[in-house]
Amino acid sequence: MHATTIYGERDIRFEEVPDPVLSSGRDAVVRVVAACVCGSDLWSYRGIQRVAHPGGRMGHEFVGVVEQVGAEVARIRVGDFVVAPFIICDMTCINCRNGFSSSCLHSAWWGGPDADGVLIDGGQGEFVRVPEADGTLFATPSYPADDLVPSLLTLSDVFGTGHHAAVSAGVGPGSTVAVVGDGAVGLSGVLAAKRLGASRIALFSRHSDRQALGREFGATEVIESRGDEGIRAAKDLFDGIGPDAVLECVGTAESMAQAVGTARPGGQVGYVGAPAGGAELPIRRLFRTNVGVRGGAAPVRNYIEELFADVWERRIDPGRVFDLELPLSRVAEGYAAMDERRAIKALLRP
Amino acid sequence: MHATTIYGERDIRFEEVPDPVLSSGRDAVVRVVAACVCGSDLWSYRGIQRVAHPGGRMGHEFVGVVEQVGAEVARIRVGDFVVAPFIICDMTCINCRNGFSSSCLHSAWWGGPDADGVLIDGGQGEFVRVPEADGTLFATPSYPADDLVPSLLTLSDVFGTGHHAAVSAGVGPGSTVAVVGDGAVGLSGVLAAKRLGASRIALFSRHSDRQALGREFGATEVIESRGDEGIRAAKDLFDGIGPDAVLECVGTAESMAQAVGTARPGGQVGYVGAPAGGAELPIRRLFRTNVGVRGGAAPVRNYIEELFADVWERRIDPGRVFDLELPLSRVAEGYAAMDERRAIKALLRP
Repeated sequence: MHATTIYGERDIRFEEVPDPVLSSGRDAVVRVVAACVCGSDLWSYRGIQRVAHPGGRMGHEFVGVVEQVGAEVARIRVGDFVVAPFIICDMTCINCRNGFSSSCLHSAWWGGPDADGVLIDGGQGEFVRVPEADGTLFATPSYPADDLVPSLLTLSDVFGTGHHAAVSAGVGPGSTVAVVGDGAVGLSGVLAAKRLGASRIALFSRHSDRQALGREFGATEVIESRGDEGIRAAKDLFDGIGPDAVLECVGTAESMAQAVGTARPGGQVGYVGAPAGGAELPIRRLFRTNVGVRGGAAPVRNYIEELFADVWERRIDPGRVFDLELPLSRVAEGYAAMDERRAIKALLRP
Repeated sequence: MHATTIYGERDIRFEEVPDPVLSSGRDAVVRVVAACVCGSDLWSYRGIQRVAHPGGRMGHEFVGVVEQVGAEVARIRVGDFVVAPFIICDMTCINCRNGFSSSCLHSAWWGGPDADGVLIDGGQGEFVRVPEADGTLFATPSYPADDLVPSLLTLSDVFGTGHHAAVSAGVGPGSTVAVVGDGAVGLSGVLAAKRLGASRIALFSRHSDRQALGREFGATEVIESRGDEGIRAAKDLFDGIGPDAVLECVGTAESMAQAVGTARPGGQVGYVGAPAGGAELPIRRLFRTNVGVRGGAAPVRNYIEELFADVWERRIDPGRVFDLELPLSRVAEGYAAMDERRAIKALLRP
């Protein structure tokens, strides 16, 4: 089969690799129907994160059809259409049961080693071996209509992550919200906040196309300024004190400072931007203002059932974050388009 | 009248000062019945925090009887027995209404300047001018029995602050809890967590007298180890992953690291120890574990009504944190006893 590999900075290849085989009795093999490129894939692409293993597999978001299952797999069946979350998890350990599958005691990463040290496939390939298949995979009740595939794919990561930002920020009915970050995660956060009942949502954005999608997703205001000026603008919009909840969807020191500075006293920052560089939390400001900070790697597997229902019934369309679709074989173009900000998020079909 | 002043490191005096006079129409003058020394008073006493104004007033926790009220004071009456929170607040601004009187738009500090620049008295004195009296003061329905005075005094700060740690950590019925800090605030946090329905409470403590009071307040376990060893002990006690909620009641980098390391994945740290020195938050660990951090200066005025009911009906006795009582004139001995850890908390009566 063919799959996406990385050899170094801006060196993404689509090349022949061994076909997957069941490694443990709890594995499944999935034929990928759609995959995509994540903002976090760009870290190694841009050379911000060193490529540890040249030739390593890429991709951690995919949907597809189950082709094989191991002897111990009981819930997932051959022929199921499945959504795979970005972290492998058993959904039976105490952390999974607590709602935090991202801390599964048997978690593993796509492209990394499994519990037995066998390398797992990446999601940007034609086929994927899936460890802990009964926990990891979510099967839809029937084969989806083709136009639902993009939105189902967002349940792998990006919409679940935006939802996690909103949940972590405590968004509920009537909440006032600001969203820092107008990438696919930030826009997903807007949609998630709207879905959870936010009354007003301000999106920090300077790009008219992203502002437009943000407004369609539920943003009621757009703030084009940043830094202290952006904070003042946000406070002005919300009673002079700022919104109840701020979704931090970037992961830099600047974006975190913007989020913490924007929240009202006693408000809450939900953050899902993986902390890059020196993203420190200003503890004295947090203490003085009683702004809480909560978030991290999203336990998207725990959210799939709830979010799936709204996608399946076509009440929401999170797949609109994909503004570029390419054949999987042209995956390198998808990376380049996102790197150069020509695309918000690239969808790939084998 | 006489009041407590500070002139420098370990130089606490009880000396004659001008009698208070009503400055604005919203003031009251209160005759102090009981006051106390706060752990945070020790910062300037120990020279950790510079004494900005030699001769400045000390104390921010007191109860007493109203002697005079300004023309605009409508709710508080002469003769009322009142509890004063450690922050002056109007209880009408948007932050007060949101539950965060510690961010009152008209807040002021005992001993600091009021809105007109007039210096406010400290709580460790015979009389105190109280700005924003209608908001700041809570009046009891009748004059309390003498043995209730210590517990009422804890509503000024220490019990309200312990309660804030528990609320910020999300403690509710059935929660598992650990408390970092066995001082008066930590012990108050134990009692607050118990009151909120925690099922199990582990107190980090190495002092047998504090362990004993902690157990009477509701601690079900005591952990004597600290650092990584303490974290391992806490994880072992709670399903191998740690408790749901951790109350951080110290304010050092070590105590914060201990709290963050102790909480289970997806758990929550409620912190009320004012961050001293370089108490930084380990953002990468927080991200990886989805541990939330929330807290700050406690909005004790917002909590008084709720907590008062349980004190007044004698369901709880938070005043047991006072293990030393002195005449106010011997206030310096109270500071020394707390500084030398001979007392948990010193109560002072004029």
